[in-house]
Amino acid sequence: MATPDANTSQGLSCPSPQAGHASSRVMMGHGGGGLLSQQLIREVFGEAFGMQAGELAVDAAVVPTLRGPLAFTTDAFVVQPLFFPGGSIGDLAVNGTVNDLAVAGAEPRFLAASFVIEEGLPRADLARIAEAMGAAAREAGVRIVAGDTKVVERGHGDGVYITTSGIGEVLPGTRLSPAHVAPGDAVILSGTIADHGMAIMRVRQDLGFEADISSDTAPLHGLVRAMLTACHDIRLMRDPTRGGLASCLAEMAESSRRGIAIESEAVPIAPAVAAACEMLGLDPWLVANEGKLVAIVPAEAAQAVLAAMQTHPRGRDAVVIGRVVEDHPGRVAVRTAIGGRRIVPMPVGELLPRIC
Amino acid sequence: MATPDANTSQGLSCPSPQAGHASSRVMMGHGGGGLLSQQLIREVFGEAFGMQAGELAVDAAVVPTLRGPLAFTTDAFVVQPLFFPGGSIGDLAVNGTVNDLAVAGAEPRFLAASFVIEEGLPRADLARIAEAMGAAAREAGVRIVAGDTKVVERGHGDGVYITTSGIGEVLPGTRLSPAHVAPGDAVILSGTIADHGMAIMRVRQDLGFEADISSDTAPLHGLVRAMLTACHDIRLMRDPTRGGLASCLAEMAESSRRGIAIESEAVPIAPAVAAACEMLGLDPWLVANEGKLVAIVPAEAAQAVLAAMQTHPRGRDAVVIGRVVEDHPGRVAVRTAIGGRRIVPMPVGELLPRIC
Repeated sequence: MATPDANTSQGLSCPSPQAGHASSRVMMGHGGGGLLSQQLIREVFGEAFGMQAGELAVDAAVVPTLRGPLAFTTDAFVVQPLFFPGGSIGDLAVNGTVNDLAVAGAEPRFLAASFVIEEGLPRADLARIAEAMGAAAREAGVRIVAGDTKVVERGHGDGVYITTSGIGEVLPGTRLSPAHVAPGDAVILSGTIADHGMAIMRVRQDLGFEADISSDTAPLHGLVRAMLTACHDIRLMRDPTRGGLASCLAEMAESSRRGIAIESEAVPIAPAVAAACEMLGLDPWLVANEGKLVAIVPAEAAQAVLAAMQTHPRGRDAVVIGRVVEDHPGRVAVRTAIGGRRIVPMPVGELLPRIC
Repeated sequence: MATPDANTSQGLSCPSPQAGHASSRVMMGHGGGGLLSQQLIREVFGEAFGMQAGELAVDAAVVPTLRGPLAFTTDAFVVQPLFFPGGSIGDLAVNGTVNDLAVAGAEPRFLAASFVIEEGLPRADLARIAEAMGAAAREAGVRIVAGDTKVVERGHGDGVYITTSGIGEVLPGTRLSPAHVAPGDAVILSGTIADHGMAIMRVRQDLGFEADISSDTAPLHGLVRAMLTACHDIRLMRDPTRGGLASCLAEMAESSRRGIAIESEAVPIAPAVAAACEMLGLDPWLVANEGKLVAIVPAEAAQAVLAAMQTHPRGRDAVVIGRVVEDHPGRVAVRTAIGGRRIVPMPVGELLPRIC
């Protein structure tokens, strides 16, 4: 039987930088689970995520008893480019998962992050992404406690794909469910739409518009907490990411089997974003957001929820955009400025691929 | 302001199959978060994972209160090829995460799965993978409760990358920690090594060996439960995946700051696997396993733990392979058949890339 020794293990390894010598790019050897993997994890993620040496090596993190019930979610991020005005794939990966927990009525507590890295990615890029993740996690009050790193050959990825998973504690008294949506309820949107998608478009193609458009990527758990404090009885919340406001409203109508009627004029959109959409022929209702939410709240609580939102930095532009109605159950109708009414279909496919 | 209508949304979409028409391949439109995404998720994952319609659409799953403390882990799977003797990326993705929870002393409870799918992947392949995941989850007694699907352009992935994350309940009374490892403790290996890595090698390259070598991918939580029932005071457990037995032992020695002495002859290896390693010049200590574990147990409990393992299907070949010693703290020494002794270094880079 063979026994391992230093010569054998080096002779059989893929091309890899000398251990202890920091290469400026990620190589296949960084994904092997050996010394190089350990170094990459320690040097790039350890400090950025505030992890201790002992936490970095283990297969699973042990976290304290959490107050149940728990919310559990996962999201893959494949956005191109990796960096864009207002953020990076790192911010998105943390905020996206924080927001999925938040709109489930949960206080985000712990995150896990897995990385599929393309051979050749500059380590400086990975470090910048890790730092953005660490900063976003601190802002959201969550800890990244577990992770994994794999490396794929050059040409088999796009720099890095990140999957984040999160655990949150459902806020006591919360009973969000499509089943609780009722005619008369108000539909509230937390702010302007289409900022994230148009920020990506701005950098992805040299579009010749100089407008100041930035991604709205941000954690929403603080806003959600303020809203649930104002009204425990909020019916349902969603964040309109991929597929935009149109998908989000269509899903809410479908899952609740209730009709939703929206006033088109009430939906806020920044002038620069509206102009960019117009120029490109894109419908802002279909463009992704990464720091907005839609809530359905009892009519009598709408003003209190709105007031709570407007005093929070992430909800300053919050508005009532429509109502739950008896008509057209399961479907969304929008009334335009000139008084027309259209049914908003669930978008079919992909408006802007690789947006998150 | 633009308002969405069916024409606009279709006109702006990427090439996508007609909604309602099942294409035989995954297309970009399936990753857009719209109707096509919903169909793909419902048709491919819904039944395989045993999810209800309402569970498929939500951003986060709500799970009941769990008995704490909890173990939380994540793992990315990028194995090539996607199917191999003994399993697929789907089995690996479930069993790998189940095992990371198991060796942390936890009973696996809930999984989340994220998919980065390459445009053009046959839907039949994705369905086969999803079915393997569902079957592995049922065998492990866990539920897949949350998921996400992204699609990247043809040539920007390798069929599919899967990240699974898991939550488990740490078994009461368990106190696994590198800090508890003490001189005299026994080192137990649950079975033969190098089966998974050599199964991948067998299909990846046309190697001309016909031997019956299959991946050992399997869930280990049942074995761990039996072991902890035999001895609550097991010091430390790890599964020797990427980097093989050598990495695993080196990490255990390093994290515990204890010396580990292994009898080379005691490490079991199937004859066909040994022959294949010999033919290819690969060291089986460096080859990945996906259904094995290494445990450090108090000397006085070694026989009881071993007996418990040998009566479990996943531990039939379990053996004591060595001891924790006073010498060479933080390092692993192996004694060969002819009486030589070598220090086993932590492998540097990648022996077999894309093995898991």
